[in-house]
Amino acid sequence: MSSRTETSKTPEFGLSGRKIIYDEDGKPCRSCNTLLDFQFVTGTLKARGSGNSSASPVADSTQSPGSGELAAGAATDISNTSADQPLLIPGSKTYSKSGPADVEELGRSSWTLLHTIAAKYPNKPSDTQKQEMKQFMTIFSHVYPCGWCAKDFELFIKENAPKVDSKDDLGRWICAAHNEVNEKLGKEKFNCDLWKKRWVDGWD
Amino acid sequence: MSSRTETSKTPEFGLSGRKIIYDEDGKPCRSCNTLLDFQFVTGTLKARGSGNSSASPVADSTQSPGSGELAAGAATDISNTSADQPLLIPGSKTYSKSGPADVEELGRSSWTLLHTIAAKYPNKPSDTQKQEMKQFMTIFSHVYPCGWCAKDFELFIKENAPKVDSKDDLGRWICAAHNEVNEKLGKEKFNCDLWKKRWVDGWD
Repeated sequence: MSSRTETSKTPEFGLSGRKIIYDEDGKPCRSCNTLLDFQFVTGTLKARGSGNSSASPVADSTQSPGSGELAAGAATDISNTSADQPLLIPGSKTYSKSGPADVEELGRSSWTLLHTIAAKYPNKPSDTQKQEMKQFMTIFSHVYPCGWCAKDFELFIKENAPKVDSKDDLGRWICAAHNEVNEKLGKEKFNCDLWKKRWVDGWD
Repeated sequence: MSSRTETSKTPEFGLSGRKIIYDEDGKPCRSCNTLLDFQFVTGTLKARGSGNSSASPVADSTQSPGSGELAAGAATDISNTSADQPLLIPGSKTYSKSGPADVEELGRSSWTLLHTIAAKYPNKPSDTQKQEMKQFMTIFSHVYPCGWCAKDFELFIKENAPKVDSKDDLGRWICAAHNEVNEKLGKEKFNCDLWKKRWVDGWD
């Protein structure tokens, strides 16, 4: 890979101070960078307030407008829609022109899923359930759509085999995986003794 | 299962008009109902504006305060925190007392992950990648932490085997799966010809 400088069209670092991740075809990766950095490197960054950054009252950001099931979708984020574009996609009365998920939305979404999977995992899983959960975590680390994040998760799994013998084991293992990332990012670790309050029972 | 009436402590329907889903232990399922219905059935529903429903400037809702990697977390949702509770969890300076994900947050998060997985799937996957993606979707339908949603997804897979021969095949298959749910919920279907704009390239 050729070296990149701050003045090139493929800068090494973004406005966040983090390294810009490029796909194999040389384009910046949407789901591996923050939206800020992606817009910076693609020249689509807009000054705050210049575009139409408010949420449309009728439009939803996900494919599914509304709620429920393995569906739902209401978190409207159309901050990357410029004022001269229609807010809605062609032919739709409800879908806004939301862009692909950036690394932050992707991470947030994925941790929500993983912690909630642990929350519903049995206290006494069958052998099949244990085996499937191990497989799921392994494949997850292969298909996770941010390459460098996936590699880190794969390494974590190699050094810390998934603990799948009970709900509490799995919940604490995922909490530990999340904390390893928190640590890398210089963030506070979560007290894993509290994982069930956060993801199973609530705080009341 | 005993029949439930509107006046019992285990009502059949919630305020959303949807059936309340109970776990095997008889308690309402957090990740299978909307937050509104869960709070209704558990008697923890608060009048709008009575609690502290604004976001804390310092607190994040997910385990990971901040951004990045298979981490991230900033979507603060502390609407289920009452005014007489501290906003932060014990011993933390950054983690708010956010509750477990409801069926809507879970669905939104999971579709974001699935569509983005398709967005980063190869145009020409290897046999191993194809095999893993099929396995991933199958196990996903077993471990998805909302039982009735998982059953519906499992049925969809049985009737529509995952299409894993290319990025476009997978993206359209996931789009179709999402649309089946949209249809059940009475929502607009997404035009799957536009899936790459929504999840890969953006609208510019």
